[in-house]
Amino acid sequence: MDRSVRHFEEELEALQARLLEMGGLAEERVQAAVQGLVRRDLSLTERVLAGDGPINQLHLEVDERCFRLLALHQPMAIDLRRIVAAVKINSDLERVGDLAVNIAEAAKRYASHAPVKPLIDIPRMAGIAQEMLHDALDSFVRRETTMAQAVLARDDELDALKTQVFRELLTYMLQDPGSIEASLDLILVSRHLERIGDHATNVAEDVIFMVSAQDVRHHPRDTQT
Amino acid sequence: MDRSVRHFEEELEALQARLLEMGGLAEERVQAAVQGLVRRDLSLTERVLAGDGPINQLHLEVDERCFRLLALHQPMAIDLRRIVAAVKINSDLERVGDLAVNIAEAAKRYASHAPVKPLIDIPRMAGIAQEMLHDALDSFVRRETTMAQAVLARDDELDALKTQVFRELLTYMLQDPGSIEASLDLILVSRHLERIGDHATNVAEDVIFMVSAQDVRHHPRDTQT
Repeated sequence: MDRSVRHFEEELEALQARLLEMGGLAEERVQAAVQGLVRRDLSLTERVLAGDGPINQLHLEVDERCFRLLALHQPMAIDLRRIVAAVKINSDLERVGDLAVNIAEAAKRYASHAPVKPLIDIPRMAGIAQEMLHDALDSFVRRETTMAQAVLARDDELDALKTQVFRELLTYMLQDPGSIEASLDLILVSRHLERIGDHATNVAEDVIFMVSAQDVRHHPRDTQT
Repeated sequence: MDRSVRHFEEELEALQARLLEMGGLAEERVQAAVQGLVRRDLSLTERVLAGDGPINQLHLEVDERCFRLLALHQPMAIDLRRIVAAVKINSDLERVGDLAVNIAEAAKRYASHAPVKPLIDIPRMAGIAQEMLHDALDSFVRRETTMAQAVLARDDELDALKTQVFRELLTYMLQDPGSIEASLDLILVSRHLERIGDHATNVAEDVIFMVSAQDVRHHPRDTQT
């Protein structure tokens, strides 16, 4: 392997490591925001609200690394697809970080009202969204389309839960107007979780394209609404 | 100008034309969805729900064009930044198309309830979001950072309106539980409009980076929450 090829591979590995670090941070922040909601723990919530610096820093760094790789090494075929996938995954992870902030904001408001019990399927939605994100990033690292396909399938599950959560909360609100504010917060949280699932779906689609050069977007199973 | 340079320029122009076409479609669909809401016109709403084929087709085509340009021409500096910006703007426009569908879904539900009058600041939010998107794309074509900066500034305005709309609708819901379902739809629409503003903001940030190679993201005026 000549020196510049080795250097390129090393840079690509470093890029991947940064993306994984970002993914880990994003997952952690979603987890903390949801735990803040479930336990009504304002110290957790505040930590999420104050802590988006590191993920934003990584967002800039990953973009810069992608540019450098494209400009200096002019990669082709699978390598080019890997880097363009990294550009897109980077945007998706940054948005997931923003959504953790949105969830924390809702959790903070929620803690000021009487709770809607039992938090219905919100914790379950959170679990699925986090698993999807985790598996999507795993499939990126392993360049594994079977795993990526499984992520796409789970998005429908998350979508169905969102609809069900909406209906249940609407029923609460109609029965007990005193629960309106708390229910609204939960509806927003379920939407944020659904969007995290959408971002995981985007990542999985990018992985499938990267590995197989096949575009699976906008086909019958495109349910991102 | 040698032949391959001319060919590259032509391809870049074609890419830009496709992105503009996509932007035009996205704007049109947002406009139709909001009009469907305002006029309670289900034929408009249905048109938006059924019509995301062309924008999804363009999404795939633009991505393909970007890959081809990167692979065949190995562009540098500003050209490289233009193409990477196009990859990102393409994702943002596709999501705006999805958000038009989300607005149309809410508009369809909304038409089945007694209206909340007078739609408060939703039409105003829609106007601002559409203008932001339009100006952001204009700034891309003209490579004009002043215009892009103005888009960033308007995002705060949209955000403030979203908060105000939320408060007003909450008041309606608390005063009149009969308005809960309709108010919920409007709250969701205002969130969708705010997200369209976020995507326009992303585009504007990409333009500023493309032109000046300066990253304006994640600085004090980063208010994407």
